[in-house]
Amino acid sequence: MLKLSGRGQVPPFFVMEVMRAAFERERAGGKVFHLEVGQPSTPAPAGVRAAAARALTEDRLGYTDALGIPPLRQAIARHLQASYGVDVPPRRIAVTTGSSAGFLLAFIAAFEPGDRVAMAVPGYPGYRHILTALGITPVPLITGPETGFQPTVPVLEAWQSAHPGERLDGLIVASPANPTGSMIDRAALEALADYCLTRGVRLVSDEIYHGITFAMPPTSALAVAPDAVVVNSFSKYFSMTGWRLGWIVVPEDMIRAIETLAQNLYISAPTLSQLAGVAAFDCRDELDGHVARYAANRARLLEALPAAGFDRIAPADGAFYLYLDVSHLADDSEALCRDVLARTGVAITPGIDFDPERGRHTVRLSFCGAEADVAEAARRLAAWVGSR
Amino acid sequence: MLKLSGRGQVPPFFVMEVMRAAFERERAGGKVFHLEVGQPSTPAPAGVRAAAARALTEDRLGYTDALGIPPLRQAIARHLQASYGVDVPPRRIAVTTGSSAGFLLAFIAAFEPGDRVAMAVPGYPGYRHILTALGITPVPLITGPETGFQPTVPVLEAWQSAHPGERLDGLIVASPANPTGSMIDRAALEALADYCLTRGVRLVSDEIYHGITFAMPPTSALAVAPDAVVVNSFSKYFSMTGWRLGWIVVPEDMIRAIETLAQNLYISAPTLSQLAGVAAFDCRDELDGHVARYAANRARLLEALPAAGFDRIAPADGAFYLYLDVSHLADDSEALCRDVLARTGVAITPGIDFDPERGRHTVRLSFCGAEADVAEAARRLAAWVGSR
Repeated sequence: MLKLSGRGQVPPFFVMEVMRAAFERERAGGKVFHLEVGQPSTPAPAGVRAAAARALTEDRLGYTDALGIPPLRQAIARHLQASYGVDVPPRRIAVTTGSSAGFLLAFIAAFEPGDRVAMAVPGYPGYRHILTALGITPVPLITGPETGFQPTVPVLEAWQSAHPGERLDGLIVASPANPTGSMIDRAALEALADYCLTRGVRLVSDEIYHGITFAMPPTSALAVAPDAVVVNSFSKYFSMTGWRLGWIVVPEDMIRAIETLAQNLYISAPTLSQLAGVAAFDCRDELDGHVARYAANRARLLEALPAAGFDRIAPADGAFYLYLDVSHLADDSEALCRDVLARTGVAITPGIDFDPERGRHTVRLSFCGAEADVAEAARRLAAWVGSR
Repeated sequence: MLKLSGRGQVPPFFVMEVMRAAFERERAGGKVFHLEVGQPSTPAPAGVRAAAARALTEDRLGYTDALGIPPLRQAIARHLQASYGVDVPPRRIAVTTGSSAGFLLAFIAAFEPGDRVAMAVPGYPGYRHILTALGITPVPLITGPETGFQPTVPVLEAWQSAHPGERLDGLIVASPANPTGSMIDRAALEALADYCLTRGVRLVSDEIYHGITFAMPPTSALAVAPDAVVVNSFSKYFSMTGWRLGWIVVPEDMIRAIETLAQNLYISAPTLSQLAGVAAFDCRDELDGHVARYAANRARLLEALPAAGFDRIAPADGAFYLYLDVSHLADDSEALCRDVLARTGVAITPGIDFDPERGRHTVRLSFCGAEADVAEAARRLAAWVGSR
């Protein structure tokens, strides 16, 4: 038997196991409340679907420029101007096959094998797994409620003190973050950008949950860190997960590398998604309606869950997740999630996907579903706690 | 200014320069005959477009299983059975975001950084550029007309003799090949598979031009090399380039690695393309009509070009390319392509994309366009030679 590579041995997402168990339950006729998945329950907005239907009959749907069709890059530039007041020329914008492709391209363009790239833990597991697959070393920054589960300059300084011979080559920030929903305010992001700038650390800012915020407006790294790579996506706010469409904004001197890498690694992003995606920016009413629903779901959970004893919840300033400390109930979140699903039909995600160690004491709830489902799930979770 | 990575510095595709010049010519009102692009001029078959229109109204288009929707994996398994008489369980089939994603996933799963992977030169530049971006060392096997520009066991033995201390970890074969159109017959593929098997070399077989063959039926590595990774695509025979859909078949022991890598690097292939792609296998009449057109174009060029003095043409057994030796006309194929475009409106690709050294003396013609265009392009090329 031939060998397989070491770096290809990536741990699976535990949420997939939850989804499989939920699917089995549904197949057996059981009801499932889907609070495990990180995607909107809604389709793409009507304007996007109408544009796709038109493109399907009118366009040949061949390859596009590796960096995306010009009208979409221009529409994204206008969106950045409207959202943050920043003036980004379309040439710095690369349309990507979801944010996944954006991370992969940016990591290859910015980092050498063996480079060290830091990120908060808990955090999205894709970061460290993509880095590992590329031979780059992920550096976990263990964060807790005292910094809103976000990296801060003191967190970075503490890491540096503990690792005197080492240097960071990159820092990934996510605001709002998955799984916590916590955000980095403008002053803190400026401080992180300064830290990175003075030390030659490449800042990569994951902004895929921008547009879904409840407590403060989001700050883009575009506004405070000219050398940063900013990653965004049509999957969350724009409700277009399966369309596999995203974008990155890169510094001028990285454009050429991203273009040739994209030619070779992707050729181009899905053409129908690109053509339809242009219309997404004209669908704000429908999309803001989704955000209003997320806000209502969030408010309901933030009322019901503490009353049921879940009172250690990360600051859910944005995105559509609540990250709960369940250490008073279990020290094995995977077993807890199995039990909750079996006894209540509520599917939730064990924290070990986001924090391999401390995640044994945490779970993530996603509240992007229908209001009635989230409300019933909250009742059932409370009843489950009461029955223990 | 922050550093960029070395491995991210990939040379561009020269065909992109040709396409840009062709676009400029069209914008200025000039006529262009597009023999430079490697994609069918036709849209996806009507059945696929109809299925896509249905999915657009009926499906939420969320994420799918990382390895693809079960109906598509099953349809691909039936296609493999019908095409080659091989029995491949759907679990060994991973649906990918075009063949590009298939190569990336397979290379990461199979090879460590520093591993050496061989491939024929001339060949598709994406292989070596993806390998380089992943820290894997591409090993060019310089091939010529004496082996139909294909690697053979003697070619591999000669390489090994010339590099006594080194070993190969992988071999990429492509039949039909880009840019030559040449194929590997069953006996030769069996010999290569044997060579790889006895030496622990992972065979990767690019079969994206299967279905478009003129001289012999294609042999799949599935039939002769159980440990091979087979890469295929909906882009060429199925005429679905911009849909970004492909598949790989992997050995049992690689499935899990491919699944977790796909979860992290891609999440899933475009959902609409997957749902519509199931219908592609029921559109054989329309698709075989395209192949008949390619055959007619090929026959016309193989008559007209030698008469015009282009008489050293690689064996065009499949795909939709002719690879011409133009050393009697120029020693700079890029300049030749510019001159041909400027004086005739015929856009063709310089060989340097496929063979950085010897490609200065070669060009690639793509004959997947309309018959009238290809016929007129042939006339103009002949006139261009005559006018020199």
